[in-house]
Amino acid sequence: MMIKRYIYGKPIETEAVVKTLAPTEGTVPYLTATETEEAYVFEYDMNAYDRLYGLGENVRGINKRGHIYESNCSDDPMHDEGKSSLYGAHNFLIIKGQKTFGLFIDMPSKVIFDCGYSHKDQLKITVTSKDFDLYIIEEKSFTAIIKAFRELIGPSYIAPKWAFGYQQSRWGYKNEEDLKKVVAGYRENHIPLDAIYMDIDFMDNFKDFTIDPNGFSDFKATVAELKEQGVRLVPIVDAGVKIEKGYDVYEEGVEKGYFCTNEKGEDFVAAVWPGLVHFPDFLNKDTRKWFGEKYKILLDEGIEGFWNDMNEPAIFYTPEGLQEAFEKVDEIRQKDNIGIYEYFDLKDSVSHTGNNPKDYQSFYHQVGDQRIRHDKVHNLYGYNMTRAAGEAFETLEPDKRILLFSRASYIGMHRYGGIWTGDNISWWSHLLLNIKMMPSLNMCGILYTGADLGGFGGNTTEDLLLRWLQFGCFTPLMRNHSALGTREQEAYQFTDLESFKNIIGIRYGLVPYLYSEYMKAALRNELYFRTLMMDYPEDSFAENVEDQLMVGESLMVAPVYEQNARGRYVYLPEEMLMIKFKSLTDRSYKIMEKGHHYIEVELEEMVCFIKPNHFIPLCSGGEYIEALDESHLELCGFIKDEASYELYQDDGFSKDYHNPAHFTHIKVSKENKALQVTCNKSELSFTLNLH
Amino acid sequence: MMIKRYIYGKPIETEAVVKTLAPTEGTVPYLTATETEEAYVFEYDMNAYDRLYGLGENVRGINKRGHIYESNCSDDPMHDEGKSSLYGAHNFLIIKGQKTFGLFIDMPSKVIFDCGYSHKDQLKITVTSKDFDLYIIEEKSFTAIIKAFRELIGPSYIAPKWAFGYQQSRWGYKNEEDLKKVVAGYRENHIPLDAIYMDIDFMDNFKDFTIDPNGFSDFKATVAELKEQGVRLVPIVDAGVKIEKGYDVYEEGVEKGYFCTNEKGEDFVAAVWPGLVHFPDFLNKDTRKWFGEKYKILLDEGIEGFWNDMNEPAIFYTPEGLQEAFEKVDEIRQKDNIGIYEYFDLKDSVSHTGNNPKDYQSFYHQVGDQRIRHDKVHNLYGYNMTRAAGEAFETLEPDKRILLFSRASYIGMHRYGGIWTGDNISWWSHLLLNIKMMPSLNMCGILYTGADLGGFGGNTTEDLLLRWLQFGCFTPLMRNHSALGTREQEAYQFTDLESFKNIIGIRYGLVPYLYSEYMKAALRNELYFRTLMMDYPEDSFAENVEDQLMVGESLMVAPVYEQNARGRYVYLPEEMLMIKFKSLTDRSYKIMEKGHHYIEVELEEMVCFIKPNHFIPLCSGGEYIEALDESHLELCGFIKDEASYELYQDDGFSKDYHNPAHFTHIKVSKENKALQVTCNKSELSFTLNLH
Repeated sequence: MMIKRYIYGKPIETEAVVKTLAPTEGTVPYLTATETEEAYVFEYDMNAYDRLYGLGENVRGINKRGHIYESNCSDDPMHDEGKSSLYGAHNFLIIKGQKTFGLFIDMPSKVIFDCGYSHKDQLKITVTSKDFDLYIIEEKSFTAIIKAFRELIGPSYIAPKWAFGYQQSRWGYKNEEDLKKVVAGYRENHIPLDAIYMDIDFMDNFKDFTIDPNGFSDFKATVAELKEQGVRLVPIVDAGVKIEKGYDVYEEGVEKGYFCTNEKGEDFVAAVWPGLVHFPDFLNKDTRKWFGEKYKILLDEGIEGFWNDMNEPAIFYTPEGLQEAFEKVDEIRQKDNIGIYEYFDLKDSVSHTGNNPKDYQSFYHQVGDQRIRHDKVHNLYGYNMTRAAGEAFETLEPDKRILLFSRASYIGMHRYGGIWTGDNISWWSHLLLNIKMMPSLNMCGILYTGADLGGFGGNTTEDLLLRWLQFGCFTPLMRNHSALGTREQEAYQFTDLESFKNIIGIRYGLVPYLYSEYMKAALRNELYFRTLMMDYPEDSFAENVEDQLMVGESLMVAPVYEQNARGRYVYLPEEMLMIKFKSLTDRSYKIMEKGHHYIEVELEEMVCFIKPNHFIPLCSGGEYIEALDESHLELCGFIKDEASYELYQDDGFSKDYHNPAHFTHIKVSKENKALQVTCNKSELSFTLNLH
Repeated sequence: MMIKRYIYGKPIETEAVVKTLAPTEGTVPYLTATETEEAYVFEYDMNAYDRLYGLGENVRGINKRGHIYESNCSDDPMHDEGKSSLYGAHNFLIIKGQKTFGLFIDMPSKVIFDCGYSHKDQLKITVTSKDFDLYIIEEKSFTAIIKAFRELIGPSYIAPKWAFGYQQSRWGYKNEEDLKKVVAGYRENHIPLDAIYMDIDFMDNFKDFTIDPNGFSDFKATVAELKEQGVRLVPIVDAGVKIEKGYDVYEEGVEKGYFCTNEKGEDFVAAVWPGLVHFPDFLNKDTRKWFGEKYKILLDEGIEGFWNDMNEPAIFYTPEGLQEAFEKVDEIRQKDNIGIYEYFDLKDSVSHTGNNPKDYQSFYHQVGDQRIRHDKVHNLYGYNMTRAAGEAFETLEPDKRILLFSRASYIGMHRYGGIWTGDNISWWSHLLLNIKMMPSLNMCGILYTGADLGGFGGNTTEDLLLRWLQFGCFTPLMRNHSALGTREQEAYQFTDLESFKNIIGIRYGLVPYLYSEYMKAALRNELYFRTLMMDYPEDSFAENVEDQLMVGESLMVAPVYEQNARGRYVYLPEEMLMIKFKSLTDRSYKIMEKGHHYIEVELEEMVCFIKPNHFIPLCSGGEYIEALDESHLELCGFIKDEASYELYQDDGFSKDYHNPAHFTHIKVSKENKALQVTCNKSELSFTLNLH
């Protein structure tokens, strides 16, 4: 491993990395460094076709070249091409071209990556601090750079197996009737389902770790009743703690000094869903411990999974900001004739009360004996909220995996939970964005991830949801989620229920493969989603392909992401077997040669491609994960002479991940046209479907 | 021609059509009609693969299926997938599939086209009025339906030839120095240029038909000086007339009663760029005549073209709306604890002051002896503003074409001017949207059109602008335009000036072809831009193609619209000749067979495809249209046996469009491998470059 660490100033400890490397002295290679008054700037002259990979959760292509990105965790629901920041801050970038190397900037405030935006052939990285670690990673291959980085940042969070089932969410489910109606909608139509999410309305007035007594007469009983049907409930936990006399979390936090403070040292006040809140100071170890233990309240009700939200932290307004907006309104309305630019000022003054940079400069964290202004450590907030939960689960549930994912993140958080990609919209372009974002998240160790299938904001359509589910079949987190006020988008709300049942059903057949691949990637610091270029480094065309992905070791996917399309172009980097599914059992096969193809894929169909001498293990499906019978598997694939597969199977919740009993070695060889299977486990049986 | 007209109630006269068809009695074919309390609803059950074409200026695909559209001229600068309305209202739709027919709803208020959005196989059209004309068009082919419709709505506006040159605009050019700097930037770098646009800042305090005396010491001299260099100035004209004592347009309008009135009959007040304005009542014939004659003020300064803007009409606020917002602010701020939903109310109350439906219900037009509330005729406003100018030019400049285009439009306006597609953004997806919008605009008779190349809002990049120009080379209006506060995007602002010069230079070489094709399309009610399906109706794959267009009779284009792409997939519906340009003179050629191809197109390259037995006439280029020498042409094409071409050439400004002298018939035939050219004009000479 060739990682060089360059220390600038006195970096704030982020715990992004798990290895303490001795610092390298001297000049940083590749980059031209310039120190300015408030920042360090690193420049790199790119060749015309150098490519840039990484930056985790962000907009645009897999190749990040041609835009400017800012690491600045942001609650922004418009993930359009013009944006520079989403919810995560992931400062890992690989430059691939004439020279190939990786870099990681471990600094918890804003880092600006001008990826050939200002000057098309110049990469310019501005680190807005004098205190940070810069890691330069040199390895013999592109994937080796990623692996070295992953080893540096430590192992990825592992989700329970039930979280590989299909999951339904919607902002607006208020009570047990709503939840039971959704379960019934799925079960009656035999569309599989493993979990339902509870968004903010399940709480008593948006107070964390409470349950609305008007919505739930016996919450524990509801949790148990739905689990009986194979459905878990997953509650949301928001970062802000409602200011309300008598609310224990609030009272305790105030008493113990667990909240962020303002300049004067008083608990900082901002408004989010509950109205006025305090923000737990997750950078303080004691706060983390205290907040983490609160999850026990819900664990005790039978809950086995959580999503942490609003933890950039999002701020709707602060009382000071709102006051300022009111004053601006007063100032403007006094005028006789409100000029146009004043009118725009007026609009801005009110609309800019949310997520205002000024507010992020007005509160403080206590880290050890240091008081640090929030904006200096902004990108650590969501990470440490999720770490609070993750660390608590180690004690609260030492032998059981708890589902956990977050909206905001920083590298390091991948050890405690996954992420979902936030508040996307029911746009076809966001289905494509979902595809493009997966490899760069995996590069940062974030393996348990997925987008809101069908789109969160806006109104979905039946065809968009179907196409999105066809890709969602492959994302570890396969969750349909939508916003209050938008069209209802549970799979059973549409006309062609058969197709929804079929497509989601395919996911369940794929689980033996997908779960094995996820577990192996997590345990070995590998990638579950890869770009074609990673698997075919010698293929000069492969790196042009941004809308196909490798999923695990055997599969390539090429989702359809355009409305009314009846197919798409696909590039095959080698001869492959195309499997076209109409349902888990209704499939057709075609061996296709290396090169460019146009393939027909109707709305109700889904395709994937198997590499030569590879197969995938399929089970016969079911309506929820625990109902799957994985003792008998179909080996479906493309054999020229022989193929091996390492199957991972466990109980889905224990933490003895590396137990050799979980690993099964299956080998199929072709001898005199007859197929022979060897396997180190006699309790497994196989059907062969090899082409 | 088989057009059936169905009259419902007493339609408001829109003058969209130029032929008065006798009404058909009885039931409308194809559609199921339902009368509701306030609307008519027409339904049609679609087959799984029926496609929907038309609706002019709108978001999403060429096939409109799968979304809901509203005809409601709207000033909305976010042309994202979720939107239903842009600036135009174009109620022409063709259903193509098991049954194929066209329909046009001539009604100037909102019409809702639910194109399989609510139910994926149902088209549902809601006409929000009881008074309208419905035309059903049945013809033997898809293109025949379009042609019949075009004949119904009358001939398209014809632009002067100089308007086929490359044009530069930016919101922010304030004075003669700014304009001269831009001209110098182009001329010094030998990047061609034909016009510069003057956005709102050239006016004296945004007053229509005035010139800022601080910015222009001698406007006429500036106009003449730039024209001397081959560059025209094109001023903006906004719909709203500033309320200012002593401003003649305002004073006259008030005196003569030319403005829209409020419920009490007083001149209606709204705020736009100049602050408070009145809206000329363009639906009143006398107002049109009066306002149209005002253009003379600028014609007399040497101006030869105009763009009409803000004519949906856009409304930033009305005093009543702003007052209401202030009251809401007061109501909310009084509360002790501002709840979250109240906070959202607060934000909405201020942000919804713009383009508020309530305001559009609060003013009136005088049409003959009828007083009509604006929302009932909303979609006619921009149309009639442009008609005011167009009609005036017939008198003011009877022998000279004046460039004229508008932002808002309705079918009928195409006879008076073109449109630009409004305030797009520097997004790659908007380059694709530009491509997709062109055929549906042409279907509605709007031929002189184009998008803001490089994107209006947001910050462009060098590669986006280059790729966009490569498509812009083919749009009749080829204009680079950007907004105040965005990155400067004149072609000379970037690094690879050679490529900008080359790409824009290609446009000038193509002018003999593009202008001929535009003129023939305008004079014969044909399409300049067509989808592949229109030219290859028997090719079942052609209708899947939404990112390639036929341009004129000989060419197919397949622009690259993805960042960092080094090529793209192209479908050839028959054998074609690919021309790859690095510049007008540096070209390579390849004959390619029918079918699917991946073609390499580097950033500095542009490709197009020539049909067999077709060629395009090219001239040797130049830095502005009037500098072109079109007496000698290169015939560049793909000959298997023979090819004919009808060239159109005129002085570029006269209106004797149909003069036979303008039409040149060129024929090339291959006899014993030798090429023979015949042409009915001896003054033309040719170089042959036929493959």
